[in-house]
Amino acid sequence: MTIPERSDIETAADRISGHIRRTPVLELVHGVGGAAGKVTFKLDLLQPTGSFKVRGAFARLLAADPRPARVVAASGGNFGLAVAHAAAELGIAADIFVPESSPPAKIERLRERGASVHVIPGHYAEALDASEVWNQSNEALFAHAYDQFDVVAGQGTCAMEMATQISTADTVLVAVGGGGLIGGIGSWYRDDIRIIGVETEGTPTLYSARRAGEPVDVDVDGLAVSSLGSRRVGAIAWEVSRRWIDQSVLVSDQATAGAQRWLWDNCRLAVEPGAATPVAALLSGAYEPESDEHLAVLLCGANVDPGTVAP
Amino acid sequence: MTIPERSDIETAADRISGHIRRTPVLELVHGVGGAAGKVTFKLDLLQPTGSFKVRGAFARLLAADPRPARVVAASGGNFGLAVAHAAAELGIAADIFVPESSPPAKIERLRERGASVHVIPGHYAEALDASEVWNQSNEALFAHAYDQFDVVAGQGTCAMEMATQISTADTVLVAVGGGGLIGGIGSWYRDDIRIIGVETEGTPTLYSARRAGEPVDVDVDGLAVSSLGSRRVGAIAWEVSRRWIDQSVLVSDQATAGAQRWLWDNCRLAVEPGAATPVAALLSGAYEPESDEHLAVLLCGANVDPGTVAP
Repeated sequence: MTIPERSDIETAADRISGHIRRTPVLELVHGVGGAAGKVTFKLDLLQPTGSFKVRGAFARLLAADPRPARVVAASGGNFGLAVAHAAAELGIAADIFVPESSPPAKIERLRERGASVHVIPGHYAEALDASEVWNQSNEALFAHAYDQFDVVAGQGTCAMEMATQISTADTVLVAVGGGGLIGGIGSWYRDDIRIIGVETEGTPTLYSARRAGEPVDVDVDGLAVSSLGSRRVGAIAWEVSRRWIDQSVLVSDQATAGAQRWLWDNCRLAVEPGAATPVAALLSGAYEPESDEHLAVLLCGANVDPGTVAP
Repeated sequence: MTIPERSDIETAADRISGHIRRTPVLELVHGVGGAAGKVTFKLDLLQPTGSFKVRGAFARLLAADPRPARVVAASGGNFGLAVAHAAAELGIAADIFVPESSPPAKIERLRERGASVHVIPGHYAEALDASEVWNQSNEALFAHAYDQFDVVAGQGTCAMEMATQISTADTVLVAVGGGGLIGGIGSWYRDDIRIIGVETEGTPTLYSARRAGEPVDVDVDGLAVSSLGSRRVGAIAWEVSRRWIDQSVLVSDQATAGAQRWLWDNCRLAVEPGAATPVAALLSGAYEPESDEHLAVLLCGANVDPGTVAP
């Protein structure tokens, strides 16, 4: 298990630059609700397919030499969509294994992008197992949703941009699922900045690992389960956490839904539950900044029925 | 009738800088649909209250010396909300005259911000008349939604930002209602850039004025009527149009709804119909850019039920 160096992230950035967006940042004038601190949002939810996951998907596909004819991934959510999108753009066939709990609309979006969709009984873990079995008799490139060197390096390109765009930030707040995003963010920032991971109480993979002193399986449920609901934090993210993540906080589903409404009402941003958790941490006081603290808050996904976000 | 100079717009920018957001831009990698040209969106829909109108509202209130105790405006939509917001932030009482056709949710938002709401039978023109009659026996500052020097100078601050943020743009595409926004945009850019005004077929105030050679009353209806449905283009916008607006194009309601869906599906932006018209002009071919043309496309409002924008 190797953690990406900054040079690996720079290499990934070069590879993916013609395919992903350098997403902008939005500086708030009055902060978030009554919370202390100056806040700048990184709007990575404006990426193609509506989440940061395209960074890692393109990075994985473009790191492979020679370019593969076929890619396989397991995901019921944003990573599957990102891989299907990246594969279609690069002329690569995609097989996506999804748990049967995935919403039909998400499966339809995968098919619209030309992916072969395999629906598997159970949850993400079962879909992942099935994809590995399938690939024993196929020659597809395997893309892991969060625990793979090139994928994590790709997600790190988001922090590389933020370091320039929000150069005075003291702290970055990041949602954590399997840890691909915070793994990349930590691999870039290292000790330069305070790094806070945020999860819902129903999806506490990083929080539980830090309490146990090692990655452990957790039962997941609740509002954010479709995007943050990995059963256990990835090995790369765990190593990044041990070295550079300063704090792990939890927020309730209620606070998360409140953050979604706040983001629509104050910024007209439709944000999915998992991606609204860093704002929930500020609104709920799960993270209490100093009054002069500059917070970089990563909004990483917008794959939500927009009709559910308005007050 | 005086057109703002660039120095007037710079003065307005100084006045409003602690109150509005310097909204970011989003550069698209693959352009808009199959249309030619490179596209950069200016995301002024991320302003407080969900539209550019806060620029003009704060500019009008902050230009008044001494600061007024009370402001009056007529608007069933974004300008009313912007004035109510700005007045509340500055500790000024607000009386907003709204046509009875305004959605109850919009009236409720005005009240939430502490405005006194006067509901008037008829449309915008009747609400405007009623506000003027009311003000003959009051001493409120009158804020016009689009045809007032300080309001137009405030809207011009959006172009002042774009000129820096999208420095290589050849052309700017702007939605037109009463013309406050394009008046400000034109007052800043002047001959520096090609300026294209976009309206729906149901709200053709600028288009009709340019055909007639002078502002004329038009009947308005259709999808964009609540934001672009002024009956006649403002005098300032008309003078700006005569001098610096290169072209006026119309789009259908169907193309506008398609642009809203495109913006959600490709950028996860919830955009109101009127504000989606510049994208509709590209998707429909109402404006056909050259292949090497760099287009600055202003997305100016997000006051829409977000449940209506998803495909």
